[in-house]
Amino acid sequence: MSTLEEVAVEWDAMATSYNNMWMLITGFLVFWMHAGFTMLEAGSVRHRNAVNILYKNLATISLGSFWFYLLGYGFAYGGDNYQTATFDFIGNGNYALSADSIGGMAGFFFQAMFAATAATIVSGAVAGRVALPAYFLIASWLTAFVYPVVVHWIWATGGWASAFQAPDDGYTPLFVDDGGCGVIDYAGSGVVHLTGGVAAFVVALILGPRLGRWSGDEEEFAANNLSLCTLGTFILWFGWYGFNCGSTLAFDGDNAGHVAVTTTLAPAAAAIVGMIVNRLVTGKYQLGNVLNCTLAGLVSITAGCSTLEPGFAIVAGGIGALVYMGSSKLMKIIGVDDPVDAISVHGAAGVWGLLAVGCFASEERIYLAYSSLECNGASGTQIATQLAGAAAIIAWVAATTAPLAIVLKVTGKLRVSEEMETAGLDASEHGGKVFAYIPEDDKAL
Amino acid sequence: MSTLEEVAVEWDAMATSYNNMWMLITGFLVFWMHAGFTMLEAGSVRHRNAVNILYKNLATISLGSFWFYLLGYGFAYGGDNYQTATFDFIGNGNYALSADSIGGMAGFFFQAMFAATAATIVSGAVAGRVALPAYFLIASWLTAFVYPVVVHWIWATGGWASAFQAPDDGYTPLFVDDGGCGVIDYAGSGVVHLTGGVAAFVVALILGPRLGRWSGDEEEFAANNLSLCTLGTFILWFGWYGFNCGSTLAFDGDNAGHVAVTTTLAPAAAAIVGMIVNRLVTGKYQLGNVLNCTLAGLVSITAGCSTLEPGFAIVAGGIGALVYMGSSKLMKIIGVDDPVDAISVHGAAGVWGLLAVGCFASEERIYLAYSSLECNGASGTQIATQLAGAAAIIAWVAATTAPLAIVLKVTGKLRVSEEMETAGLDASEHGGKVFAYIPEDDKAL
Amino acid sequence: MSTLEEVAVEWDAMATSYNNMWMLITGFLVFWMHAGFTMLEAGSVRHRNAVNILYKNLATISLGSFWFYLLGYGFAYGGDNYQTATFDFIGNGNYALSADSIGGMAGFFFQAMFAATAATIVSGAVAGRVALPAYFLIASWLTAFVYPVVVHWIWATGGWASAFQAPDDGYTPLFVDDGGCGVIDYAGSGVVHLTGGVAAFVVALILGPRLGRWSGDEEEFAANNLSLCTLGTFILWFGWYGFNCGSTLAFDGDNAGHVAVTTTLAPAAAAIVGMIVNRLVTGKYQLGNVLNCTLAGLVSITAGCSTLEPGFAIVAGGIGALVYMGSSKLMKIIGVDDPVDAISVHGAAGVWGLLAVGCFASEERIYLAYSSLECNGASGTQIATQLAGAAAIIAWVAATTAPLAIVLKVTGKLRVSEEMETAGLDASEHGGKVFAYIPEDDKAL
Repeated sequence: MSTLEEVAVEWDAMATSYNNMWMLITGFLVFWMHAGFTMLEAGSVRHRNAVNILYKNLATISLGSFWFYLLGYGFAYGGDNYQTATFDFIGNGNYALSADSIGGMAGFFFQAMFAATAATIVSGAVAGRVALPAYFLIASWLTAFVYPVVVHWIWATGGWASAFQAPDDGYTPLFVDDGGCGVIDYAGSGVVHLTGGVAAFVVALILGPRLGRWSGDEEEFAANNLSLCTLGTFILWFGWYGFNCGSTLAFDGDNAGHVAVTTTLAPAAAAIVGMIVNRLVTGKYQLGNVLNCTLAGLVSITAGCSTLEPGFAIVAGGIGALVYMGSSKLMKIIGVDDPVDAISVHGAAGVWGLLAVGCFASEERIYLAYSSLECNGASGTQIATQLAGAAAIIAWVAATTAPLAIVLKVTGKLRVSEEMETAGLDASEHGGKVFAYIPEDDKAL
Repeated sequence: MSTLEEVAVEWDAMATSYNNMWMLITGFLVFWMHAGFTMLEAGSVRHRNAVNILYKNLATISLGSFWFYLLGYGFAYGGDNYQTATFDFIGNGNYALSADSIGGMAGFFFQAMFAATAATIVSGAVAGRVALPAYFLIASWLTAFVYPVVVHWIWATGGWASAFQAPDDGYTPLFVDDGGCGVIDYAGSGVVHLTGGVAAFVVALILGPRLGRWSGDEEEFAANNLSLCTLGTFILWFGWYGFNCGSTLAFDGDNAGHVAVTTTLAPAAAAIVGMIVNRLVTGKYQLGNVLNCTLAGLVSITAGCSTLEPGFAIVAGGIGALVYMGSSKLMKIIGVDDPVDAISVHGAAGVWGLLAVGCFASEERIYLAYSSLECNGASGTQIATQLAGAAAIIAWVAATTAPLAIVLKVTGKLRVSEEMETAGLDASEHGGKVFAYIPEDDKAL
Repeated sequence: MSTLEEVAVEWDAMATSYNNMWMLITGFLVFWMHAGFTMLEAGSVRHRNAVNILYKNLATISLGSFWFYLLGYGFAYGGDNYQTATFDFIGNGNYALSADSIGGMAGFFFQAMFAATAATIVSGAVAGRVALPAYFLIASWLTAFVYPVVVHWIWATGGWASAFQAPDDGYTPLFVDDGGCGVIDYAGSGVVHLTGGVAAFVVALILGPRLGRWSGDEEEFAANNLSLCTLGTFILWFGWYGFNCGSTLAFDGDNAGHVAVTTTLAPAAAAIVGMIVNRLVTGKYQLGNVLNCTLAGLVSITAGCSTLEPGFAIVAGGIGALVYMGSSKLMKIIGVDDPVDAISVHGAAGVWGLLAVGCFASEERIYLAYSSLECNGASGTQIATQLAGAAAIIAWVAATTAPLAIVLKVTGKLRVSEEMETAGLDASEHGGKVFAYIPEDDKAL
């Protein structure tokens, strides 16, 4: 390096490399979240269906990675055309990484891990009765098309609701005239969790409850293994540091540090609130409840992890626990059977996560986290922006998944037969037991 | 970058960012250790109390993060005043991160993960009989006050026993006139593990043993699930790389590499020594013993991970296994019931870890690891310094936790009723079973 | 930094530090793979032998680290003498890190984690009947000598089959006159997995099958816990990102990103192919099969992770699943009992991984991944080179492990007695049960 120009060239190369390292490490952690979903769900379902959920989750990351590579990434980030289009709905290039150089691989990897996450949220909600081929089709559809479109809207430069653009880009972010700045959803309370939660709700609703769910003994549907559920929750929290901190998309030490702090305090507060409220209401310290409250706290801070001050992260997480508990009760009232409460954890808390940004985001933090983006932060306008984003996601995901699920249902492909369900999916579909010895009088068999 | 001055400015920003990355990644690993403690403890206790320990561990990381944010971090590192005070006992500012800029977030995050670790050591030792509200209070007290004070002493610039200062700071490190240089406790054999171990001992002693522990069948108190214990141990070893290597507090590739090597060789040697001795003594290869020996090896190298040469790491780890086995036997003799042997793994090996630095630390390695600090390394003076540090920690933690435990005991709040204990905490407190089917004749039920 | 010279000096120090960070983080992940092997194997064996496998795996990482430190690293990378020797077979210095400076510690750590991986592959294949002292001896022999020699051949500058050298080094890479460039085995399909697989085959063959394996009820040998098997597979995939991406040996953001993508697509494709073929053949979706196919996909891309384009990673992974399934069937036909199918996953897919480079590697990618090495990539010559490498590994490992196993067998030290095997190793050797309650009529007891 004999001139300053050479230093500058080397510097840029180093910075790119450095950013890639961050994308890779945090992407590894997001991959690891799939182990978390798998353990949480395998512990939550009945013994007779545990192999089925293990199988489905391995299939989800595999199918999800494959389809996102082949199509999804192109729809999400490929070929923006916002400077000519008036409404930039979807990407249109770079399928199978055809247009991407080697330098873009780390970024693709990180995004692919996210895509599979959105799909896996569905797997728990439909556990115990969905037919495997139908599930594979739904997971493929979500990762190849439904989820990528949402990503394009909110995270791609040029997406119609994206905050990653300045007004003078020739594009008008949502409600910008009133001080808004597009949907602030840093790591995906909406893009990932609400998308997964809505798909889970739609499919679970069309699928119907497990046999005997609302008439039988509650104990029969208890979690079969709470150690696995707890392990899964710890894995998810751990992986969430990658999920949220990696959403800086390049290494930005200050923002990433802030994100780690909020991603700690929100679930901590949610767990504490969940423990207190649950004890007051039921007289017990129910483990399943506090695990899901913790996860709801994580979902609640995912949108605002970089823009809420630590104190507000505590508030957002604590409220997230209440939102989860309310939604979970509501699902029982309306009779939607969700073996792992994925709809409430990811869907309901996902909406709250988006909304929390409108309520609490700091103007200064948005400026720092969003490349000097200027807007008001917490305000009526931002609340409206966030709710508009949530409404669009709900409408889009429902509109694209319901028809598929209905067609599958009408053609008899969505659900296994009563005989298979009664025998258990493990015996009928997989020819094996999750645990060598499960006695006949196991309540959760 | 058109001038060298600009290069220098960018360089500093880059270096800070880089250091933060290291703090974050290693902090994530320390978080993950909580999953390790949870699995180890859930596998070690009786079946009837496994939900209780899972619940307690999730509560510990949640309460610990919250209290350390609100108060602990301020007591640990806030507002040093050593230049005016003659005895710098405690920090006095930056509560709830009120004084910290965004650049300090990664450092806080790393420290918060450590704080919760000190608390969680207690949870295993008191398993099976402690009342939940009492435990919550003890964990809060430890993370909000007891542990932060020890941190301040040994790790804060200005702490009365800290090695992170030069004599011309206007402060006199411990035994400095004789070639000492304050307490060398790089990653916390003393600060974290001994603190947790002493608190565990004090509370377990006051609490008393589980019903029938010293009169019943030994098999009734056997670990209920050794796969979980082994998983927990692997998680802990994995996370320990973050714990020890991250204690460079900034990325220092040479020191971090050295630390990774010693953090591998010490537990490896401890496992090997443990296997041999255990086989000679009992005629069996007991899995629980080798797991705890491995952990004792990790605790033994935690203080000296950066200052012992690899060969001495092997010696320190091997002796650590013996220290653990001796202490474990001693606890049984004096009748202190510790379901997971936390007192011996963290307390006894914690003292040995401190002492090992006095016996084996290299002058050259201290110079490299402690910002050019000059002292003799292994020497009588350093042994005395390390023992003084250990004695201070033992005295402080005992003096601050015993009164709380005694008050709780006297008021009948420390321990659950005999009925609840006999029924099992899972049934009486949590309304659930860890595993759907646990038969009546399960020995460890 | 007042001169450009100073900038250059600082730059080099920074780059070294940065590279070490990558070695450490990815090395941590490789350590974590040991937890994956442990869980996979503990779930796969019979209930009565689960403690034994947990114990053996902890011993493997401990013994492996120790022996690789004491001897193995010196044989692998110590004292190259290729400029004077005509055939550089083995390293000859730096035992116990005696010649290494602190700057080399991170590199040693990464390599040590690999060494233990090669050994642990054997532990599953010999499960249920090998005597512990014999296994300890075999694992020590592998990590101290057998594996390091293979490393030297293929990865050390100067190894006779290494691609890490240019022809003008005074050394002739394998088949270089025909456009070859030594054996391309980036992360060790051959060096690690084939080495482990061959040793597993040899020892399992000499050891013989478990009692009743080919005559009894198939269900008696079913996996005892499929949740643990699935967890183990997820851990392994996660850790494999470190295994493959860290094999850049220094941080190279572009190559590491490419490696992460191929390390995702290959196992994903393998899982999908495995699911389809298994369903067509058996009518079931067998979980054990898809888990092993996934791992075979990972082994298949390990050699070519940096030199195959993403599309070819999919092909390599998909074929890897077929190779695994064929080999697994073959092992049953020839009567070699491998409780976890390690021979097929690591050995057979390891050969295929080497071969896949010959079939699909891109000239451009080799140039980028191997420091501007120029060769033809996929070609008949490279296929021959890769096969020559595979043949050499098979011959070397068989020749060095078979005599040891035969001597142990002849002296009656290789296998436990029939009584011990029938009683189960856990009861006879370890004095404990993996799970507190295992009923007598557990099929896999």
